[in-house]
Amino acid sequence: MRNFKLVLSYDGSRYRGWQRLGDSDNTIQGKLENVISRMVDANVEVIGSGRTDAGAHALAQTANFHCRTDMDCGQIKAYLRQYLPEDIGVVSVEEVDDRFHSRFHAAEKTYCYRIWNDDRPCVFERRFVWPVEEPLNVTAMSDAAEAFLGTHDFLAFCSNKHFKKSSVRTIHRFTVERVGPEIHFTVTGDGFLYNMVRIMVGTLVAIGRGERTKTDIPAILDTRVRENAGETVPAKGLCLMEVRY
Amino acid sequence: MRNFKLVLSYDGSRYRGWQRLGDSDNTIQGKLENVISRMVDANVEVIGSGRTDAGAHALAQTANFHCRTDMDCGQIKAYLRQYLPEDIGVVSVEEVDDRFHSRFHAAEKTYCYRIWNDDRPCVFERRFVWPVEEPLNVTAMSDAAEAFLGTHDFLAFCSNKHFKKSSVRTIHRFTVERVGPEIHFTVTGDGFLYNMVRIMVGTLVAIGRGERTKTDIPAILDTRVRENAGETVPAKGLCLMEVRY
Repeated sequence: MRNFKLVLSYDGSRYRGWQRLGDSDNTIQGKLENVISRMVDANVEVIGSGRTDAGAHALAQTANFHCRTDMDCGQIKAYLRQYLPEDIGVVSVEEVDDRFHSRFHAAEKTYCYRIWNDDRPCVFERRFVWPVEEPLNVTAMSDAAEAFLGTHDFLAFCSNKHFKKSSVRTIHRFTVERVGPEIHFTVTGDGFLYNMVRIMVGTLVAIGRGERTKTDIPAILDTRVRENAGETVPAKGLCLMEVRY
Repeated sequence: MRNFKLVLSYDGSRYRGWQRLGDSDNTIQGKLENVISRMVDANVEVIGSGRTDAGAHALAQTANFHCRTDMDCGQIKAYLRQYLPEDIGVVSVEEVDDRFHSRFHAAEKTYCYRIWNDDRPCVFERRFVWPVEEPLNVTAMSDAAEAFLGTHDFLAFCSNKHFKKSSVRTIHRFTVERVGPEIHFTVTGDGFLYNMVRIMVGTLVAIGRGERTKTDIPAILDTRVRENAGETVPAKGLCLMEVRY
């Protein structure tokens, strides 16, 4: 069995997220498994670096799969580009060591969350941004984002109420900046809990609106109670930018 | 009767172009006329600066309409933003002199045509670019674009075989440049014939492929025969950027 690593871009607008759900193939994983299984005439499981939410996007999701084939990486890339839908793009295909596992070996992930914060309409970017009309204090949000840096128990920033494993994660970088009509929240960490990026952004937006302050963040972390954090902002603004190994 | 000028952005992907076609409202003009007519409870005609093709886009199309209303520009903008679909955006609403006519008074228009010319997949921009895989000589295309500058009879660059009016137009600027994974063709002129931008770009692409040279352009113009020019490139790469008065 050979092991192939994929780097993928996708517009998640019309999908129910990364993870395959039963026989439905309206998921990114499902689409990939269908095409790759047909390519090698065997049932293939595609392992992603992690799930992305329904409606969220990826600039560079990574995945791997094991199969028997005589095809080389260029042939696999050409086949996948031909048969995958146009909203799932193959950036690269690479043969890797048999032990490589895209989820277990992921060392660091970067997400970007985009808010459209401008009076101009966002017709071209509308699938990839969350529109917020009122002014947001970017300096306050950028300053407050620092409170997430380092190693914390992020259970208060997790939507899964029955989460049993360790909810300790380390955030390496977290920037908030205005980019033309948008505000970009870019966060890098060793891993993220379910909806964690979207809840951190929701909490920062409450700070940007003046409803909360930076000092609330350590207090929320301490409680480990989801209800104390901010709203879960819509998935469509979220994009997985990079996975490092 | 008052006269209002609109500046509009639209993603033309799912429309049959600007111009209303019978009772179908699957056109930009049709959508606008339906919403504005309901707003003022009267039949309103919306006059665009010009037609855009089925599948082509606008960053700043201009239009105007006459009606009786007590609403101010801010109220009209809010109403249109509420009732227009999300792929038609209202940039601004302004009350103008009764004699202002968005088509007759348009002095200069700028279009941008975007080619995706990169091995990376274009999942996020796919509705707004034409993907061309092979390398294109940007320097040769940029140099050749100069041959369009000035005043010429552009009948060879017009898809309408029965065009009876003057086919003389003046091109003020025409640049071709690489922008990351894309090539942008940006052209400004006093007006454009039917499909003229798409045929000029198609001719430049033939030059970028090495199939033609810059000196072919004056020769093609002289013949006034459509078949001598290049292909009509797909509408989805085309965007109306600005209309000046």
